[in-house]
Amino acid sequence: MQPPPAEPGMPEDEVDTPALLLDLDAFEANLDMMASLLAPTGTRLRAHAKTHKSSVIAKLQMARGAIGQCVQKVAEAEALAWGGIPDILVSNQVVGARKLARFAALAHIAQVAICVDDAEQVAAIEAAAEAAGVRIPVLIEIDVGAARCGVEPGPPAVALAEHIAASKQLRFGGIQAYQGSAQHQRTPEQRAASIAHAVESSRRTVEQLRQRGLDCSIVGGAGTGTFRLEAASGVYTEIQAGSYAFMDADYARNSDAPPFRHALFVLATVMSRAIPGVAVVDAGHKAVAIDSGLPLVWDRPGLRYAGASDEHGKILIEGGTPPGLGEKLRLVPGHCDPTVDRYDWYVGVRGGRVECLWPVSARGGMA
Amino acid sequence: MQPPPAEPGMPEDEVDTPALLLDLDAFEANLDMMASLLAPTGTRLRAHAKTHKSSVIAKLQMARGAIGQCVQKVAEAEALAWGGIPDILVSNQVVGARKLARFAALAHIAQVAICVDDAEQVAAIEAAAEAAGVRIPVLIEIDVGAARCGVEPGPPAVALAEHIAASKQLRFGGIQAYQGSAQHQRTPEQRAASIAHAVESSRRTVEQLRQRGLDCSIVGGAGTGTFRLEAASGVYTEIQAGSYAFMDADYARNSDAPPFRHALFVLATVMSRAIPGVAVVDAGHKAVAIDSGLPLVWDRPGLRYAGASDEHGKILIEGGTPPGLGEKLRLVPGHCDPTVDRYDWYVGVRGGRVECLWPVSARGGMA
Repeated sequence: MQPPPAEPGMPEDEVDTPALLLDLDAFEANLDMMASLLAPTGTRLRAHAKTHKSSVIAKLQMARGAIGQCVQKVAEAEALAWGGIPDILVSNQVVGARKLARFAALAHIAQVAICVDDAEQVAAIEAAAEAAGVRIPVLIEIDVGAARCGVEPGPPAVALAEHIAASKQLRFGGIQAYQGSAQHQRTPEQRAASIAHAVESSRRTVEQLRQRGLDCSIVGGAGTGTFRLEAASGVYTEIQAGSYAFMDADYARNSDAPPFRHALFVLATVMSRAIPGVAVVDAGHKAVAIDSGLPLVWDRPGLRYAGASDEHGKILIEGGTPPGLGEKLRLVPGHCDPTVDRYDWYVGVRGGRVECLWPVSARGGMA
Repeated sequence: MQPPPAEPGMPEDEVDTPALLLDLDAFEANLDMMASLLAPTGTRLRAHAKTHKSSVIAKLQMARGAIGQCVQKVAEAEALAWGGIPDILVSNQVVGARKLARFAALAHIAQVAICVDDAEQVAAIEAAAEAAGVRIPVLIEIDVGAARCGVEPGPPAVALAEHIAASKQLRFGGIQAYQGSAQHQRTPEQRAASIAHAVESSRRTVEQLRQRGLDCSIVGGAGTGTFRLEAASGVYTEIQAGSYAFMDADYARNSDAPPFRHALFVLATVMSRAIPGVAVVDAGHKAVAIDSGLPLVWDRPGLRYAGASDEHGKILIEGGTPPGLGEKLRLVPGHCDPTVDRYDWYVGVRGGRVECLWPVSARGGMA
């Protein structure tokens, strides 16, 4: 773990760079906004911790009504459980005996659940639960259109659910129905069509399960790009949005972008002004994820981040005030989740000063 | 820092995934190959540690004749100096008083040098050196065609060199002349033209400096894509290749690819086989960098890694033997440097067994 790049009380301008900056006013406004958007729908928020990887942020989300957290990895579940989070769903398949043993061990200190899309995995989780002396809720992931993981909706899901329900060590927990590929579709019409299909697939599966006496205590899914649709569906019970807390540049490119503010930034320093018309900053693609597009320069019209190499970001000066050598710039990441995962520390800022340092406790949690 | 995903002696197949695998036979062959290619040229190897971020690997390179290491960041220089590496060049600009104070402190335990492309930075380094009570060699970065950092070759470089030479705390150390954008040009003709320009720019600058009585003890540059050209130039004295030790998929796409073997892999597990024709692995773009293309599936014809999300890699089964649930696959990263930076541990393997675990000691060293 690297030393923190700042100290509480320090002016933002003295923070060492590149650093992961959290604008606390914007962040808190985002948490409040999500709570107020979901309240009238009756769906619950199970925020996705793959975005923030922090038990501190998880607690703040739960203080505003989130009923738990989702994670993608056992290492993330560990970081949250060790940080006191009481209700964690691994919204993903976990394959491998060592990983499942670690997962099952967490059931002693938190309520943990997990997903499957294969009967072989039911047996593997059963064995891990039995060895740990715990009983584990298992959800079935169904493929609602992303064609990545998940069994087909309907009868294949019912067959797998009956398999789970027959186990002494397991409890059937519901369905995982996340439509990942819909999140960044650009128009409301595209997203509405994708989620209509996901809702219909989920509704049908829930109904067929009910006919066999299998109730879904969780019907989970949705991300920041589509959650208003799932929340209004009458089928989904839990919303798994994560990016809403930070709001990245790519979500902001959606027409009718969700009503959240940019709260997460990479603070960078201009390290070279030798080439005319160019300011080079010390944040390249090791410091800011570029899988969903290059970062934007915040609040500096005329500056465009035009290219990233390992440790350099090339900013073209196309207008406005040219930044001087040593000047600090805020960058809005194209994609928050993998950007956060590159850092050990959040630097929380408010009113131009550092207010807090929070560890990215599941940073690099691969397994 | 995450716990290591393996133990020495364990079969490779039991390593927890995703994991950063180093094939020790291929890695050692690459180090030997570079030593034998450079020996007849008289140029020295100053291997670039931004690739490996490991003082262990640096020592192995130096045991085969490398005379030192390059880094891009003060945090990388610290990790190497603390790990006993005696000669380190920051082949980059470092801007900010805190960073320069940390850099100057290293001069008490190692020979460290640094680059500038601005007179303002000469003053800043001078102040840091004076405060630390050390004398620091400073190189001038010249722009040899990449248009990123560096002053113009010729008179602007000479003026800056005279500025450095006039300082009591600094020593003029030579020129940094790296043509980064030439490294991944696809044809030998493109690369030859780019490096011919870089060599001519460097030769002219070195000659003009010499006329002012300023000798370049280092003329440094070159990467894995072009080093044979710089080494044959009669101008460059030090080669800064890094990727040669691991050899990533993108360098292998160059026609007349450098004669190195793939030594670095991401080991991944098949975590879902629910969708026909698809195997999903647990290594998405948080586990393997995709800035220079998607990874390749190693030694499994017919399997193609076709898409990465945060924690999932989608492999299309287009032929060959379909991989089973839980099966482990080696992936060749498109780009080694940022892939390594996502991990805490190298898992060194030989003959199907884990031989060693080495920390990625400068992992996440942002500043």
